[in-house]
Amino acid sequence: MAHPTATAASPHQAAPDPGAVFDWLDREAALRARAGLTRTLRSRPSDDPVLDLASNDYLGLVRHPRVTRAAAEAALRWGGGATGSRLVTGTTELHTELERELADFCGAEAALVLSSGYAANLAALTALTGAGSLIVSDAYNHASLIDGCRLSRAEVRPVPHRDPGAVAAALAGHDGGRALVVTDSLFSVDGDAAPLPELSAVCREYGAALLVDDAHGLGVLGPGGTGGPAACGLAGAPDTVVTVTLSKSLGSQGGAVLGPRRVIRHLTETARTFIFDTGLAPAAAGAALGALRLLREEPQRAGRAREVARQLSGRLGAAGLLTAVPDAAVVSVRAPSPEAAVAWAADCRAAGVAVGCFRPPSVPDGQSRLRLTARGDLTEEQIAFAVEVISRTAPENARG
Amino acid sequence: MAHPTATAASPHQAAPDPGAVFDWLDREAALRARAGLTRTLRSRPSDDPVLDLASNDYLGLVRHPRVTRAAAEAALRWGGGATGSRLVTGTTELHTELERELADFCGAEAALVLSSGYAANLAALTALTGAGSLIVSDAYNHASLIDGCRLSRAEVRPVPHRDPGAVAAALAGHDGGRALVVTDSLFSVDGDAAPLPELSAVCREYGAALLVDDAHGLGVLGPGGTGGPAACGLAGAPDTVVTVTLSKSLGSQGGAVLGPRRVIRHLTETARTFIFDTGLAPAAAGAALGALRLLREEPQRAGRAREVARQLSGRLGAAGLLTAVPDAAVVSVRAPSPEAAVAWAADCRAAGVAVGCFRPPSVPDGQSRLRLTARGDLTEEQIAFAVEVISRTAPENARG
Repeated sequence: MAHPTATAASPHQAAPDPGAVFDWLDREAALRARAGLTRTLRSRPSDDPVLDLASNDYLGLVRHPRVTRAAAEAALRWGGGATGSRLVTGTTELHTELERELADFCGAEAALVLSSGYAANLAALTALTGAGSLIVSDAYNHASLIDGCRLSRAEVRPVPHRDPGAVAAALAGHDGGRALVVTDSLFSVDGDAAPLPELSAVCREYGAALLVDDAHGLGVLGPGGTGGPAACGLAGAPDTVVTVTLSKSLGSQGGAVLGPRRVIRHLTETARTFIFDTGLAPAAAGAALGALRLLREEPQRAGRAREVARQLSGRLGAAGLLTAVPDAAVVSVRAPSPEAAVAWAADCRAAGVAVGCFRPPSVPDGQSRLRLTARGDLTEEQIAFAVEVISRTAPENARG
Repeated sequence: MAHPTATAASPHQAAPDPGAVFDWLDREAALRARAGLTRTLRSRPSDDPVLDLASNDYLGLVRHPRVTRAAAEAALRWGGGATGSRLVTGTTELHTELERELADFCGAEAALVLSSGYAANLAALTALTGAGSLIVSDAYNHASLIDGCRLSRAEVRPVPHRDPGAVAAALAGHDGGRALVVTDSLFSVDGDAAPLPELSAVCREYGAALLVDDAHGLGVLGPGGTGGPAACGLAGAPDTVVTVTLSKSLGSQGGAVLGPRRVIRHLTETARTFIFDTGLAPAAAGAALGALRLLREEPQRAGRAREVARQLSGRLGAAGLLTAVPDAAVVSVRAPSPEAAVAWAADCRAAGVAVGCFRPPSVPDGQSRLRLTARGDLTEEQIAFAVEVISRTAPENARG
């Protein structure tokens, strides 16, 4: 039944069987299966009883009534979609309101909202560099930053993870054209923070711009969750551009670029992933705005997420597991192999705790691990339950 | 007030002024202004009284109560966002339902929903090609297809617009590695259709796969709006992959890849813009599903959009304007210059009709034009009003 036309080969020609065009995909799937790297989608119900430590819902806002009501009201008032490119019909007053409040919250001059953080990173990298430019990029940067580098036509120099000295050396060797240093503020896989003050100092020494992806910092780092750059005095800096997502701490979907007004104007007029994409759906803009306002009223949510991370990491470490010290709300626990990571995560789920399971190629160091989200709304009881389950189900050789 | 730290130059070093890092953006803005190519965002209110012929809301569904209610209900039930990558926590039963119904509607084996059509095109192009592959790409293809080609590491051969002979020549010169031919089904700027049957025949002659971006075809072309590939018997073909958007005829946000089950599995496991992006927000999935079900019940909406396009084009042509014969729901009207196009669109808006205004670099042939969306829900009165306004405000030299 698979391919109705696959066997309908024309008798009068020697052309290849159209049904065979994608045979190579089955061979690649078999290779992935042999390497223990098969991935499958798991469809979750709306009343999933499992304790969620796998999402990026750092503040536990995704189902907060104020957030979901804001989404629903936006859809009812503005429609199911934005109807077109932001430059044609896709900018509503709601988008403008969100951009203003987001910039204000993070201490930036201006903001531009796109349909995803991925699109925001592609926009910033391609619009702010180009042929003749140099991009210096942390080796552990997110896939969207790497793709942005590839699209940019700039010379891209990867540097070792969190290494301002290597960044300085890369900039020192540049011929004087435009240069951009790019880094995650908080690396998603291991939960470690970039040395932003040192990177900014190096940028200023060499006249380079700094692009910081604050996807996992917004809502968690900085005073009241105002983000990684704000945490070290870089909010509103004239040479620093920040990208964020609306899909993690803000419980919605979308991304944004924050920075000097002239950077935002330039992206508005030239960034292809902004110009040639449909605007963010009103419901997503509404949800993000609802979450942002809630966070402003309850700034302690940011510190609570960091505290939960410290507790999770400390207690799992005390149980002998290999956890990194968390810089924000991501706790990483090493697994001895991809297969062991998959089995461990499955055992956790069976015991009622959903954890992230990161394997190659989603891990920059090739090291499989469980990834735990220290949601700011976890109770003491939930934290204890999670620690108990993760420790109990750990494979023999997971302890250091 | 612009850059608070820009003048705080350290006295003890000769480092460049951080405030000057982005001075080049102002120079580029001045160049765009001189060329008449400045773009600004217009923020629309929810009760905009202007007649909309500028959006991509081809079936007039974006504010249909069934669509907006489906969006609102999904947000209230599932949350403001999908909470993570589709492979981790971002797949809800709602996503699975949408994928099943979308594949079924278009006659494909399977579907994969992404956060935008842009992301869907990047996913399909990068996952189905790679170093050593050949991509043959129509010169007028959408920006997201062009970016996908750039990201793919494949050899990319652009061919003249709608030219199966040139595609055959490009494939004939290939060394026998994998090859993919990529085209829009309906080109957004001029509203003309690709010769899909001829392109498919050429692909089959040379053993190439065919990738069709049906963003502007879904909901308008084919029986009951089932799309451009369905219109010419290519739905469900084993060698054809289709991308669509949920943000045009379906009144929502997002994109999808449709194709043989093994293609969808491959993308699920390997496509970076799928793996490393947050899943589509539940409200957007809900809105798209609501629109899809409505279209199934009211299949005449597709034909009506095409009929409105023929009427608009015919009457504007009779008034002496240079319109292309529309193949779907996009009507293009030539303007003598970018400045004239901007002024013409502004005059239309002042008279109560919003039209698209396309200028370089958003037009592949460098020709500025008005772009009209022949919404299937336009009344006879609205069509007459639009024709009257567009004709009356036309610049002197817009008539052929």
